[in-house]
Amino acid sequence: MKKLINSADDVLADALKGIEASDGNVRVDHTNRVIYRAEAKDSGKVAIISGGGSGHEPMHGGFVGLGMLDAACCGQVFTSPTPDQMLEATTTVDTGAGVLHIVKNYTGDVMNFEMAAEMAADAGVQVETVLVADDVAVQDSLYTAGRRGVGTTVLLEKIVGAAAEEGQDLASVKAVAQKVADNGRSMGMALTSCTVPSAGKPTFDLPADEMEIGIGIHGEPGRHREPMADAKSIAKQLVDPILHDLDFTGAPVIAMLNGMGGTPLIELYLMYGEVVALLEAAGIKIERNLVGNYITSLDMAGCSLTLVKADDELIRLWDAPVKTAGLRWGL
Amino acid sequence: MKKLINSADDVLADALKGIEASDGNVRVDHTNRVIYRAEAKDSGKVAIISGGGSGHEPMHGGFVGLGMLDAACCGQVFTSPTPDQMLEATTTVDTGAGVLHIVKNYTGDVMNFEMAAEMAADAGVQVETVLVADDVAVQDSLYTAGRRGVGTTVLLEKIVGAAAEEGQDLASVKAVAQKVADNGRSMGMALTSCTVPSAGKPTFDLPADEMEIGIGIHGEPGRHREPMADAKSIAKQLVDPILHDLDFTGAPVIAMLNGMGGTPLIELYLMYGEVVALLEAAGIKIERNLVGNYITSLDMAGCSLTLVKADDELIRLWDAPVKTAGLRWGL
Repeated sequence: MKKLINSADDVLADALKGIEASDGNVRVDHTNRVIYRAEAKDSGKVAIISGGGSGHEPMHGGFVGLGMLDAACCGQVFTSPTPDQMLEATTTVDTGAGVLHIVKNYTGDVMNFEMAAEMAADAGVQVETVLVADDVAVQDSLYTAGRRGVGTTVLLEKIVGAAAEEGQDLASVKAVAQKVADNGRSMGMALTSCTVPSAGKPTFDLPADEMEIGIGIHGEPGRHREPMADAKSIAKQLVDPILHDLDFTGAPVIAMLNGMGGTPLIELYLMYGEVVALLEAAGIKIERNLVGNYITSLDMAGCSLTLVKADDELIRLWDAPVKTAGLRWGL
Repeated sequence: MKKLINSADDVLADALKGIEASDGNVRVDHTNRVIYRAEAKDSGKVAIISGGGSGHEPMHGGFVGLGMLDAACCGQVFTSPTPDQMLEATTTVDTGAGVLHIVKNYTGDVMNFEMAAEMAADAGVQVETVLVADDVAVQDSLYTAGRRGVGTTVLLEKIVGAAAEEGQDLASVKAVAQKVADNGRSMGMALTSCTVPSAGKPTFDLPADEMEIGIGIHGEPGRHREPMADAKSIAKQLVDPILHDLDFTGAPVIAMLNGMGGTPLIELYLMYGEVVALLEAAGIKIERNLVGNYITSLDMAGCSLTLVKADDELIRLWDAPVKTAGLRWGL
């Protein structure tokens, strides 16, 4: 294993130092491993929290800032944060208007966020939760009952952050979140495994002439393996299962062509071109897009496609100003 | 070789389709392989052009837009664009106020930009050129007489773009460019080789327990190879040669901790934390920073550090609004 780290045990603690030094939008609670917005609390605003295992950067810490998250709870690499971290974050960011928890559907995350929400309620904080379970690849998975939560999380955090910023109340923010979660679908693929620092070797072996279709963001098994193919064929294998699962015609679509961490941008642009051609042929119009590394899987090579079937409200919220390390516009 | 491409011959042409589809700031001339700003020419503004081999994304095409480049000439992967491309771009963007060519110091780029500048002058366009040669690793290299041009190019394109946007004339824009070029230094390292699509195999072999210090962005040899080390030691091997080359104390510094394409963001943040600690110990204050993939080398794992010794004028230009796929703030 060759990685730019000091030791497998210190990856998260050391990375948090770099995040704090580089990103003027945030402050880091190193004891609880929570990343907060740097500016003072906006009184009366619904607060938005997410969190999960590390190794998916810039998600979630890179999405803390004006117009997006108020706090991100950082677990160790590919490990859920604890209920204590989530409770600390929840009580810290609450302005009295309540807190929305954005939870990706993995068993550990779901259980821990549930426990934190109960404890926060006992402490007098109103908490609502939205569960993201958008991965059409598999029904159940290594770490999940039901679909895995992947790329829609990024788009949801942006849109819901804007709703909170403009002063919507907790019920309304929750409704926006649920609309995004209900209308987002993702599908991923891998050319290589990732290597978890504490394991020291690749999570799985993938022969030099094969790829895995339907991979999860922790290297969980996908749908099947098959011989390496060209970008056009791969794009079709991402687009088809998504369109099979939800009808995206007749609505503005927000698309994300996401890199898994080890794939260069030139390939992501190329893949995006192929995806656009397929969607146009299917009569689907992309109104907004992201191309790049937004929800990664350490050093895995590969990509994923996320489509959110939007409406005028979601597009308006998407376009609202955001100022985070990972997404920034309008400010 | 496993890559998200259709064929080695079509990588650039296909990627340009995706860039055009994703980035509303640009339009693409597919015949000449030039990426232009989408909006109409700003009459009287000095135009800024750069270009080079592809495979370093988001540089340069991802830096076309308001406050940065007016055009980027795209060569094939790791291959200089031709004088014809550069001439076409130069005459297209000129508003009568002249054009600055930003050239990285590689023999092919230098020769072709010189030829294009002469042809443009014959056509009545005033052209000035700034050469970036900031890599402290080696004096001469595989594709270079003199130092290679690397990370300072990114910071220079941002700063000079702002100078042009605020209406500075060609001589003044050139002077700003030269100040950045004179005060920027970089040093890189690699954990793995990159694989050029047309070659189909890694450019070099690097054993599983070794790294290369002083690597170039095309996989050109660096200073030496040595056993893999921890992030602290690697950071020192990047910082020391830069500080040995130029005194950065007493000035505000703009820093970039750049990924080579195959290294995940969590490792780049971690490395940035180590670099900040070393610079603080040396009495050097980072005023602005970038952490991420900005000048890459296809799928190479590794990173580079760039420091620009700035002053109030350069910091002011750095902070000016920019709206490109790769850098965006203030708008």
